[in-house]
Amino acid sequence: MTAENKTNLSIAEMMDDIGCAARCSAAMLATTKGEQRNLALAASAAAIRQSAGDIAKANRLDMNAAELTGLSGAMLDRLMLDAGRIEAMASGIENVMALHDPVGRVLDEWERPNGLKIQRVSVPLGVIGIIYESRPNVTADAAALCIKSGNAVILRGGSESFHSSQAIYACLRQGLTEAGIDPNAVQMVPTTDRAAVGYLLSSMATWVDVVVPRGGKNLIKRVQDEARVPVIGHLEGICHVYVHKDAETEMAVNITLNAKMRRTGICGAAETILIDRDGAERLVPEIVGALQGAGCEVRGDDSVAALAAGVNSATEADWATEYLDAIVSMRIVNGIDQAIEHIRRYGSGHTESIVTGNADAAERFLNEVDSAIVLQNASTQFADGGEFGMGAEIGIATGRIHARGPVGADQLTSYKYVVRGSGQVRP
Amino acid sequence: MTAENKTNLSIAEMMDDIGCAARCSAAMLATTKGEQRNLALAASAAAIRQSAGDIAKANRLDMNAAELTGLSGAMLDRLMLDAGRIEAMASGIENVMALHDPVGRVLDEWERPNGLKIQRVSVPLGVIGIIYESRPNVTADAAALCIKSGNAVILRGGSESFHSSQAIYACLRQGLTEAGIDPNAVQMVPTTDRAAVGYLLSSMATWVDVVVPRGGKNLIKRVQDEARVPVIGHLEGICHVYVHKDAETEMAVNITLNAKMRRTGICGAAETILIDRDGAERLVPEIVGALQGAGCEVRGDDSVAALAAGVNSATEADWATEYLDAIVSMRIVNGIDQAIEHIRRYGSGHTESIVTGNADAAERFLNEVDSAIVLQNASTQFADGGEFGMGAEIGIATGRIHARGPVGADQLTSYKYVVRGSGQVRP
Repeated sequence: MTAENKTNLSIAEMMDDIGCAARCSAAMLATTKGEQRNLALAASAAAIRQSAGDIAKANRLDMNAAELTGLSGAMLDRLMLDAGRIEAMASGIENVMALHDPVGRVLDEWERPNGLKIQRVSVPLGVIGIIYESRPNVTADAAALCIKSGNAVILRGGSESFHSSQAIYACLRQGLTEAGIDPNAVQMVPTTDRAAVGYLLSSMATWVDVVVPRGGKNLIKRVQDEARVPVIGHLEGICHVYVHKDAETEMAVNITLNAKMRRTGICGAAETILIDRDGAERLVPEIVGALQGAGCEVRGDDSVAALAAGVNSATEADWATEYLDAIVSMRIVNGIDQAIEHIRRYGSGHTESIVTGNADAAERFLNEVDSAIVLQNASTQFADGGEFGMGAEIGIATGRIHARGPVGADQLTSYKYVVRGSGQVRP
Repeated sequence: MTAENKTNLSIAEMMDDIGCAARCSAAMLATTKGEQRNLALAASAAAIRQSAGDIAKANRLDMNAAELTGLSGAMLDRLMLDAGRIEAMASGIENVMALHDPVGRVLDEWERPNGLKIQRVSVPLGVIGIIYESRPNVTADAAALCIKSGNAVILRGGSESFHSSQAIYACLRQGLTEAGIDPNAVQMVPTTDRAAVGYLLSSMATWVDVVVPRGGKNLIKRVQDEARVPVIGHLEGICHVYVHKDAETEMAVNITLNAKMRRTGICGAAETILIDRDGAERLVPEIVGALQGAGCEVRGDDSVAALAAGVNSATEADWATEYLDAIVSMRIVNGIDQAIEHIRRYGSGHTESIVTGNADAAERFLNEVDSAIVLQNASTQFADGGEFGMGAEIGIATGRIHARGPVGADQLTSYKYVVRGSGQVRP
């Protein structure tokens, strides 16, 4: 046996042990009461506060290593945990705790003519694999949502945040133990070997019900390509704001500016503004001016460039680009049909908004644009579980199976049918 | 290029053409009204009635070929279409037509403190691939459910039923055309080459949102192993009836007999009967006698054999076997814990029933047994979309993602969030 095969074998064994323990734990978790799971969350939050010093120390190790390897400033910022961020993790767990119990809800019930009483009742999904990158707080956020929804979770964090995540992970295990729940409800892959991710994606369908990737496009692409288990997530958010000819100028300016510039690095940030030719003379100079004034580069087609100064030329590639930066592409369209067609062609099915005072146009847009979230007269940056009132979210899904849009605790459940009879047999 | 590669290339091209047309058609279908889709179903049913002679003739071709290749009697029966079965297909389509519109339903709605009005609205899944075996009527049933729910469908029937399915398929295309819907909403793979199935499963994630296999265990295993798109279905139905010590004898006999023997070849048929030791002396002779009297072979553990004559020995393998035949395995258990443990170990997560007059025991069973369907005092043979009041079903799912239990028209939908604002931007 070669050294490489031997390593792979031991990773397989380790991962199967983790998977088997998670499956076992999930079976127990599924019959816990919501109060007990809340107790675990409360104890986890308390443990994070008590261990703030240890967590900061572990984070310092990660930060030192990251600085040595020359990680970018943005990456270092994602990795960094200070007292405020550690407290935010603890209170984030408490926010999840405050949500309604997603398990055991009667989603629907009816009675059949033969007297059978049928209920559809929410149950946990089972075992969730979370694969994430440098943000160590995902360890707490994701695990809290999984515990809340009665799921066992296998966490696989990025190598940069390994020590930070381990320190947070210890607090979660402590919280579970204090609540009398099997601590294997939350497990963390104890190696940064990438083969472990490969094995999790390709060979653990027996143990893992769904995988949620959280991170950049490369990570998500890898997960989607390699996964032999269902994946909940989104590859990219190429979000559009369509400014219809009947849009008020001020509202159009406010919404496009907020949709693009409030935060440029989130998936719900707008990347392309489509503007009706009919209103372009009125709208383009104002919108471009506001964006440029906020420090945004505007890349437009010829018609846009003709109406405003300082517009760079947009190429075909721009329409398909998620900038995640202070850059926006802008195109003039010949009405709603072309706007919808543009979105169908270049969009990623994430979030699109129409700005208009015309109710018919709005209804057509909301009906015909096939994205997880469609908005009328509101910023695309509302694409967020918290803004939807779901409490925390584990991400936003653009797939069409199971969950679409913000994925909160309710979306981490499945259901079963409970049927009560009095001796019925089928004729 | 070798001949094989050339064939594979042309299959890939053909399948990608089908996929691309399906995706296009799905976009159009998603904006059709329920009435228009119902019109297509009505016209399809009429076309099947008008073409009954052609369908019967095509079926004769398939039957002749099948007889020559020595297909079993059961397989020939599945393949055969007579006037009654052709009429049943037509009226089956009309039954689907009569269901509520699964698309455009407001599943939930709420308003946020900032005035945003959020609705969760059902939308079609998109493109569904259906892979099935010898029953040609699946062509009509499955396509009807997909049309009803606004999905485009790619059908891949078994080679034995190729001519029958093509004749039925022609009627569906005619129905769509008459209703003014793109006939590519329903497409059938025009070859029996198995490479087409491989390509559909492995390389069409761009075009196909979900695959539904309908057929025997080998087919479903292949689909689950090869699919790179989500699969809805179940591998097997190892269903249990647990007769608790507080079960009435007559009810226990009626339910076990019906659960096993009403039809032995369906996935909801019981395969294992678990009986409490406490009630075994009273229950076992009656239950075994009734089953044997109906022509069922009983394979029991030693305790069962000690209480009834003519019981064969059950081996470990019996507990994990889906007989789909007039054979049942029977085991004495030491109460509800052992019953639940047995089901956890050997069950397939499909359907299990408890027979008891004890409400506490029933609640524990219904809560702790983690199957798609759990019943109290009713036969497992109720595991059926029609019996649940869903109208037709495309199958029963034992997976935990998206749909679980009977998969009807509602389960073939996804949803999107429709958000109406009045100029809101995110702070």
